[in-house]
Amino acid sequence: MRFFSDNAAVAHPKVMEAIAASNHVDTAYDGDALSKRLDGVFSNLFETDVRAFWVTTGTAANCIALGALCPPYRAILCHKDAHIEVDEAGAPGFFTGGAKLVLLDGAGAKIDAETVCAACERIRPDVHQVQPAAISITNATEYGLVYRADEVAALGDVAKAKGLAFHMDGARFANALATTGESAADVTWRAGVDALSFGFVKNGGLSAECLVLFKTELADEVAVRRKRAGHLVSKGRMLAAQILALLEDGLWLENGGAANAAAQALARAAPQRLVYPVEANEVFLNVSSEEAQRLRDQGFDFYDWGPGEIRLVTSWDQRGEDVERFAAALAAL
Amino acid sequence: MRFFSDNAAVAHPKVMEAIAASNHVDTAYDGDALSKRLDGVFSNLFETDVRAFWVTTGTAANCIALGALCPPYRAILCHKDAHIEVDEAGAPGFFTGGAKLVLLDGAGAKIDAETVCAACERIRPDVHQVQPAAISITNATEYGLVYRADEVAALGDVAKAKGLAFHMDGARFANALATTGESAADVTWRAGVDALSFGFVKNGGLSAECLVLFKTELADEVAVRRKRAGHLVSKGRMLAAQILALLEDGLWLENGGAANAAAQALARAAPQRLVYPVEANEVFLNVSSEEAQRLRDQGFDFYDWGPGEIRLVTSWDQRGEDVERFAAALAAL
Amino acid sequence: MRFFSDNAAVAHPKVMEAIAASNHVDTAYDGDALSKRLDGVFSNLFETDVRAFWVTTGTAANCIALGALCPPYRAILCHKDAHIEVDEAGAPGFFTGGAKLVLLDGAGAKIDAETVCAACERIRPDVHQVQPAAISITNATEYGLVYRADEVAALGDVAKAKGLAFHMDGARFANALATTGESAADVTWRAGVDALSFGFVKNGGLSAECLVLFKTELADEVAVRRKRAGHLVSKGRMLAAQILALLEDGLWLENGGAANAAAQALARAAPQRLVYPVEANEVFLNVSSEEAQRLRDQGFDFYDWGPGEIRLVTSWDQRGEDVERFAAALAAL
Amino acid sequence: MRFFSDNAAVAHPKVMEAIAASNHVDTAYDGDALSKRLDGVFSNLFETDVRAFWVTTGTAANCIALGALCPPYRAILCHKDAHIEVDEAGAPGFFTGGAKLVLLDGAGAKIDAETVCAACERIRPDVHQVQPAAISITNATEYGLVYRADEVAALGDVAKAKGLAFHMDGARFANALATTGESAADVTWRAGVDALSFGFVKNGGLSAECLVLFKTELADEVAVRRKRAGHLVSKGRMLAAQILALLEDGLWLENGGAANAAAQALARAAPQRLVYPVEANEVFLNVSSEEAQRLRDQGFDFYDWGPGEIRLVTSWDQRGEDVERFAAALAAL
Repeated sequence: MRFFSDNAAVAHPKVMEAIAASNHVDTAYDGDALSKRLDGVFSNLFETDVRAFWVTTGTAANCIALGALCPPYRAILCHKDAHIEVDEAGAPGFFTGGAKLVLLDGAGAKIDAETVCAACERIRPDVHQVQPAAISITNATEYGLVYRADEVAALGDVAKAKGLAFHMDGARFANALATTGESAADVTWRAGVDALSFGFVKNGGLSAECLVLFKTELADEVAVRRKRAGHLVSKGRMLAAQILALLEDGLWLENGGAANAAAQALARAAPQRLVYPVEANEVFLNVSSEEAQRLRDQGFDFYDWGPGEIRLVTSWDQRGEDVERFAAALAAL
Repeated sequence: MRFFSDNAAVAHPKVMEAIAASNHVDTAYDGDALSKRLDGVFSNLFETDVRAFWVTTGTAANCIALGALCPPYRAILCHKDAHIEVDEAGAPGFFTGGAKLVLLDGAGAKIDAETVCAACERIRPDVHQVQPAAISITNATEYGLVYRADEVAALGDVAKAKGLAFHMDGARFANALATTGESAADVTWRAGVDALSFGFVKNGGLSAECLVLFKTELADEVAVRRKRAGHLVSKGRMLAAQILALLEDGLWLENGGAANAAAQALARAAPQRLVYPVEANEVFLNVSSEEAQRLRDQGFDFYDWGPGEIRLVTSWDQRGEDVERFAAALAAL
Repeated sequence: MRFFSDNAAVAHPKVMEAIAASNHVDTAYDGDALSKRLDGVFSNLFETDVRAFWVTTGTAANCIALGALCPPYRAILCHKDAHIEVDEAGAPGFFTGGAKLVLLDGAGAKIDAETVCAACERIRPDVHQVQPAAISITNATEYGLVYRADEVAALGDVAKAKGLAFHMDGARFANALATTGESAADVTWRAGVDALSFGFVKNGGLSAECLVLFKTELADEVAVRRKRAGHLVSKGRMLAAQILALLEDGLWLENGGAANAAAQALARAAPQRLVYPVEANEVFLNVSSEEAQRLRDQGFDFYDWGPGEIRLVTSWDQRGEDVERFAAALAAL
Repeated sequence: MRFFSDNAAVAHPKVMEAIAASNHVDTAYDGDALSKRLDGVFSNLFETDVRAFWVTTGTAANCIALGALCPPYRAILCHKDAHIEVDEAGAPGFFTGGAKLVLLDGAGAKIDAETVCAACERIRPDVHQVQPAAISITNATEYGLVYRADEVAALGDVAKAKGLAFHMDGARFANALATTGESAADVTWRAGVDALSFGFVKNGGLSAECLVLFKTELADEVAVRRKRAGHLVSKGRMLAAQILALLEDGLWLENGGAANAAAQALARAAPQRLVYPVEANEVFLNVSSEEAQRLRDQGFDFYDWGPGEIRLVTSWDQRGEDVERFAAALAAL
């Protein structure tokens, strides 16, 4: 029973149908009818004019955005455990042409306005030190915590005051919103976010992510950066089809909610072991290596997260019976 | 009737079936069972040990390869109409970190050993001038010509003599081999090629291309460069599935041959108008803008290629009756 | 007798004195009293507010400017024999992060508005092709020709019309102005130039060049790019001292004029052999290798410029008797 | 009285004489007679064959070396207060093409083998995390501590065991060796160092630093990287002259010793206030802002180093009476 990663989950049947249905002749790249619908659909969702760019990975979405938001000679402030720092092979350095990540502390991989301000103050405003240009946060975070709209807005205010751009890595944006019930607009552009990496692959998609640009004046640059990085695929309609299938009828939120519910069920089974509050679809538990082995012997698959800690990730398609069995096993440890 | 681009064609039904069949849980990225088969399948095809890396675009395949073959401070020799120069938004500059393309002349977008040698001789061997590090050719070329194994080997000999790496952009590799009947090995590594961008998207694939590495000692670097550029997709099995569907049972060659046959039929209809010999699936014709308009009025879709010239590209799925009608229309001009 | 390169000439005694005089304690980098005078002195010379940045090489001046004027994903239009293309080891690619040089033809390494427009028109305005961002010209050119203010202005008009930045490599700016007698303002910012690499090293300086920025809103970025490239030297006062020594009392123009006069004397000796009109301090002559050998046997040192051609470069300190002897030798060939 | 920075000190009279003496015609760039002597002189000093490259700044020396030692997709391990991290405007990111600095802790800006090993172990050996390629240390450190040969060798052993390159920033190499009396060879290549930035500007030089390459097989690449970064100055003989003046007759060690002695005199005056042991020419003291003001009122110039801390840096030319007066003032606080 797989609680290893939402990355490895299957795609939703409606996504697969949409891909199949998109397999007809249309213009190449992003000139097709499906791709052309994205701007409108996302603008509706976000209640403002946005520009939406499909890509095939979260790393591409994050780093194309960061390349447009941060010049090579400046810095991006992010949490020290942010995906862009830890798990993207240095892609921010590649896409920006050598910009620096300034690493911040914060419980559960969240950063706050105070930490950002303190980091900015430590940087001498001269040519010898790398000046900040952008903030990047992950929502839900790498440890499964969720930023509420007011928390994002507090960071957005700092960004505005200091002239910093503001990026949100929303690889698990659906899980975040399914938890808070807040509007997509409130937690992003209304809170000062300039660009969002809107994740679909961990949430029922097969191979489509989306870079949603609120700072639309960067659209031409982003389009070029996507192409230049080899991310303008020939038959983009198959990516647009996936995104539309998930966005329409709210399937994305439904999937996010299902994954979250499974995580909650696991959390309730071992509340005393929780390393972080469970707010999305990730559960970090204090579990010894012997206990971990016992769980694995029962057929549960998950990730070791340093000594004495494990990470469970639930997916949109997690079977209820598997969750129940895992919950029971955790409770019985 | 579409003769615009093989990029825009549909994917082959077997490819779609393979994608659907791959939609089950497996490890993320390229650790899944399908992805793991690629090295073996390509090694069989090429009769030597190779390393195969799926990516989603030809630009990614080309430029990840070039990044590994050419340091930032050196140059890649290629035809002045090469795709990497003309249609990749400067991606070689991005992936290599600023390497230079030295542009060569040659009929039909082919370059030969003599031209390469002459270009090398024009470069003073000092630190003021950018020294060459690699050759890149496209096979079939951007104008639909095909390099035979002995032509590639002549370039490979130059590359070896001058210490240059050798890359082949095989966006239409299937069309090239379908024409010559030569072996994949003879036209690549046996002729000195270090890395091949093996195209599938223009030949029945949906979203998978493959970087085939003959210089296998670069495999670790290529793997990192793929990830760093945001090209290590989460559910790589859907890419591997497409490639396997096309490679197995020779579907790739069958598709390439079908597209070529359609191009030949068109070429035969207007031999006196041919700008280049037709050796793959592209047909360049001398056609006035008035004539072009007449063809369009009859429902034929194609690309204007400068004043007085049009480009037709045939696809694996070109319907025979469409080809016949277009041939008749061309003959009747 | 050296007619090889103005690069190798000695520094002017006043420059050496100024360096010696600057060897006292002051703030490091560019905070010292001499460096602080540069903006004012250059603003006077150019009759407008400029920002002046000393650097130690022309390559640094050119490429720091180009990095600020052209984003990584766009192109710089320049002559195919421009120093930035031919003799800077690919530095524009390095400093811009991978921007492309689009190479133009033109007699004597000059480009004109027509050629620039034609090049722009050949670029499809889509994401597949690299869009232009800047024009760079060299004045005096690599073949010793000089742009008049109206010629520069014609290019400046094109730049403005097409939204391109405009850079001038003035490694031999003094020679150019000494010939035309035009004002520094007329041939630069009044003609649309955004940034000038103002050369001193070939004209009596020891190790100082200057990047003069007319588009002063880029000053902060240029300052950072200079530091980031390792060009913010600790004791900048020794660079500022050189520049001030040359600028004040018009020594720079005097030196440029002396070098030009020597070149004219040589040109007059062999008018039928001139490859280009002699407008600055370079003389290109049709001279067979046997003739070249005869000249060398008489003690003259110069550069072979391809088969049957030689390049003579005169310097500010060229001795009259050497020039006379060389002129006589040329006439006697 | 200046205790602000050794960067701002004057050049030694012998250096000024050498510059003046070098002002004669010779070949440009580094082909002149003085530049050609560097390899030999440094090879003698280091008792092995080395390649020596003059540059004009420490940032250039450091980052040209790091660019040759670390590919764009890997990381350099260094102290979190290392000059390359804190004071070079992100130059390592620029010169390497986006490599990452992994920041280590350590008292007095020193790192040790244990810390390096622990950092390496925290990096998962997969394509998602940036793998280390090099170690960089500063000797003497940014806080004026000195690595002994055996400490360097312990790091060198780790580097060798883990396949890492090893760079030493020796901006104050003279001060380090003047303290330990160890041989230049023992503390560098015999201890595993591949490249050394050998500082002269803080030690009596005017504008010359030197990159000393022990891993001589990288010499061609370093030469190209120097040119490409705009650091191959035209009249390199004036840089070589400075270096030769300082190296010959041991002037560099004499200067370093003089600066160190001044620092020791200051340290002895306020031993209870020392933040770090004083091993080179920097003295960090616990001094309140009120006390600092009192010192400034007496005419002493120095740097505030965070709240309650000041930094004094002594130079080769520090006048004995100034040192005595400052020592007295410190003792009297």
